[in-house]
Amino acid sequence: MTAPRPLAGVRVLDLGQVYQGPYAGFLLAQAGADVVKVEPPRGEPLRRREARGGPPSFPLAFLNTNKRSATCDLKEEEGRDLLRRLAGAADVLIENFAPGVMDRLGVGWQALRELNPRLIYASGTAYGLSGPDSERLGMDITVQAWAGVMSITGEAGGRPLKAGPAFIDFLGGTHLYGGIVSALYERTRTGAGRLVEVAMQEAAYPTLLSQLGLMHHDGKLPGRAGNRHGRVSPYSVYPCRDGHVAVICITERHWRNLLRAMGREDLISDPRFRNNEARVAHRDETEALVAEWTTGLTRSEVDEAARSHRVPCAPVRDLAEVNADPHLRERGFLEAVDHPGLGEIRLPASAVRFDGRPSGPLEPIPALGENTEEVIREWLGAVPDDEGSDG
Amino acid sequence: MTAPRPLAGVRVLDLGQVYQGPYAGFLLAQAGADVVKVEPPRGEPLRRREARGGPPSFPLAFLNTNKRSATCDLKEEEGRDLLRRLAGAADVLIENFAPGVMDRLGVGWQALRELNPRLIYASGTAYGLSGPDSERLGMDITVQAWAGVMSITGEAGGRPLKAGPAFIDFLGGTHLYGGIVSALYERTRTGAGRLVEVAMQEAAYPTLLSQLGLMHHDGKLPGRAGNRHGRVSPYSVYPCRDGHVAVICITERHWRNLLRAMGREDLISDPRFRNNEARVAHRDETEALVAEWTTGLTRSEVDEAARSHRVPCAPVRDLAEVNADPHLRERGFLEAVDHPGLGEIRLPASAVRFDGRPSGPLEPIPALGENTEEVIREWLGAVPDDEGSDG
Repeated sequence: MTAPRPLAGVRVLDLGQVYQGPYAGFLLAQAGADVVKVEPPRGEPLRRREARGGPPSFPLAFLNTNKRSATCDLKEEEGRDLLRRLAGAADVLIENFAPGVMDRLGVGWQALRELNPRLIYASGTAYGLSGPDSERLGMDITVQAWAGVMSITGEAGGRPLKAGPAFIDFLGGTHLYGGIVSALYERTRTGAGRLVEVAMQEAAYPTLLSQLGLMHHDGKLPGRAGNRHGRVSPYSVYPCRDGHVAVICITERHWRNLLRAMGREDLISDPRFRNNEARVAHRDETEALVAEWTTGLTRSEVDEAARSHRVPCAPVRDLAEVNADPHLRERGFLEAVDHPGLGEIRLPASAVRFDGRPSGPLEPIPALGENTEEVIREWLGAVPDDEGSDG
Repeated sequence: MTAPRPLAGVRVLDLGQVYQGPYAGFLLAQAGADVVKVEPPRGEPLRRREARGGPPSFPLAFLNTNKRSATCDLKEEEGRDLLRRLAGAADVLIENFAPGVMDRLGVGWQALRELNPRLIYASGTAYGLSGPDSERLGMDITVQAWAGVMSITGEAGGRPLKAGPAFIDFLGGTHLYGGIVSALYERTRTGAGRLVEVAMQEAAYPTLLSQLGLMHHDGKLPGRAGNRHGRVSPYSVYPCRDGHVAVICITERHWRNLLRAMGREDLISDPRFRNNEARVAHRDETEALVAEWTTGLTRSEVDEAARSHRVPCAPVRDLAEVNADPHLRERGFLEAVDHPGLGEIRLPASAVRFDGRPSGPLEPIPALGENTEEVIREWLGAVPDDEGSDG
C-alpha cells in the first residue's frame, strides 16, 4: 500500500512481550506507525526458542509484522541509557512487564516523562498498576479464572472450562491501542503525553454482560449453560451429519423463517412456540425440534437453508477451514508470507481497516537486533559508535 | 472528574445497537467525547423491553453511560434529513447495521462524506463490508462457530462449546474504538475523514494464536483440550475442596517454586519433571501431582501458597465474587450507580485509564430521546421548531 496511513510518522518503542503488548504494537504498525520492537539481548520469551537454534516462533512472526527489531540490555546502565535516549525521540512506549519493573530499572513513566513530556507511556498488566491485587501474577488462563470467565464456560453441571482462545490478552492489547491513539490525538491539542494503563481483568469484565444482565434480572448466579442462553430459544449448537452448526433466533421473524426452512410451517401458530417467552418456557421441546432437523443434514445443507431464509446460522469450523476461508482471502485479511525459517505461512492483517483496505503488505519480523544501529542513526542522528562518549 | 479528558470536544453520533457499536461509543464517551446515542423512535433492540413497560435493560444501562439520547426515524425523510444535518456537525458516526443498510437509506459513508469530508464513519459488522460472506447474518455465537473459536473450546473428546462471554462483540467494539481514534489523529494532519471498518470475524482471528502456533508446529489440527495446553505443563484448572483453581508454570522457576509450595522439593531433580518438555512427555503424572495437592485444600489455601511462592495461580470465581471484588472497587473500576428504574447497580468504568484514573463518574443513560432538542440546538444552532422550514 502506498497511500499514507493514519499513523504515519508516529514513533513507537514496543517493549511488549508475548501477546498483550506486542498486539498493541502490531495494531499501531499496521495503522502505519514506525514501531521498533525492543528486546533484551537474548530476545523476548517468544524469541528464545529461535535463539536456542530452533526455528523462529510462529506467534513471534504473527504478532510482529512490519516492526523493526532493536536490542537493549536494561540490566546494564548502557542499555538503560540507550532506552532513555530513544524514549526522548519517541512518541509512544509500550510495555507489559509486571507493575514496578520499569520503575525499579529507573526507566518507568515518572522518569521518562521528565526526559520527554510528550511521551505516551502505555502499560498493560494483568490486574493494573494499583490496588491490592496489582502484584498478583497473571496470564490469560489465570485471568480467565479470576475474572469470572470460566465460571460461565462449560457444560451445565460440568467443571469450569477456559475459553479456548487467549482472548483476554488480545482484548487487553486492543484497549491499549485505543488508549494510546486517544492520547496521541489529545497531544495534538495539549502537547503533553499521558500514562495509558490497561488491566486485562478490567478489559474482560464487559464481555460478561449477558450473564451480568441475567444475574441482575432474576438475582440468581449464572453458571455454566453449555451452548444455551438463559433467555433466548432457539439458541444453541446443534449436531449435523458431519459436525455442528450454531443457530440463533433473535426476532420472531427469525423463528418463523426457521420453521419455513425446516418445512414446519404447521408450528407457526403453535402456542408452545408463539414467541420467545413461550419457547424459553418450552425450551427442551424447542431445542429438540431444531436438533431433530439438523441431525439428518450436513452442515452445508443446514447453512444453505438458513441463509436462504435469513436465519442467523454458522457451521462450527476447525482452524484448517478458517485458514482456508476464501472470504478472508478475498478481503486480503489473510496473506501468504514466505517467512525466513518458517516457509510459507498465513499471517493476518489488522482487523481495523481504513477505507476498506487491509493493512498489508505484511513484512516479516527482522532478525533479533537487526535494526538497532539503523534506529539509533535515524532517531538520534548519531552513529552507534558515538554511544560511549554521547551517553 | 474535572480534568480535561483526551477526547473532550469530539462529537460522536452513535447509531450502535446491542453490543459492538455501543461498546465503541462507550469507550469514546469514557475518554471524554460528546457521544449522542441515536435511536429509532421505539428505541434500539435493548431499549424495547423498557418501551413495552418493563424495567430498563441492564445491558442498555451498562453500555451507554455518559451518552446523551436522541431519536431519529431513518424510515422517514425527515429523520434522514436530521441525521444528515447532525452528521454535518459531527466528527464521528458509528453504526453496526448489516452491510448496505445505511447506503440503501441514503445515509451511508459515500453520501455523508460529501456533506462532511471531515466525518469519520465507523462500521462494525460480523463479516465485513466486502467479500462473499458479507451478507451472512452474524451474532456473537454464530461468529464463535464460524471463526474457529468453538472448535477449540470444550472437553477433549466432547462437543464444541461456546466461550461463555460474548467476547467477539467486545473485541469488535474495541478495535472500532482504536480505528476511530486513529482516524481522528490522522485528521489533525490531513483534515480529511475516513471510513473505518471492523469485521468481528477478523477481530477474533488473532485470539486463536496459541492453537495456530501448535498447528504450524506439528501440522496437526488442534482440537478441544479441556483446560490443558498442548505444550505447557502444569497448565490447567485443578479441583479444590471448595471449587477450582487455575495454575500455570511458564518458567522452570515457577515449577521449582510450585514444588516448594507443595512441599515436594524431593522432586526438583526428578528426571520426569526436569523441564517443561519432560513434564509434557509425562503430562498425566505432572497434572495428577498438582491435582493431588490442590484437592485437599481450599481455593484460598492454594492461592496463598502460590502467591507466597510466586507461582501464577488464581481461584475460579463466580460473577458474584467478581462483582464484590475489593480490588476493582479500590481502583474505582466498578462504581455503584443509583439508576432510574434499576436501583443500585454496579457499572464499569472504561478499561482504558489515563494517568491511572478511572473514567468516572458514570452518568446513567437518559430516557429515550431526552436530549434530541438539546443536541439539535447545540450542534445545529437551530431551535427544533425550525425543522420543517430549515430542512
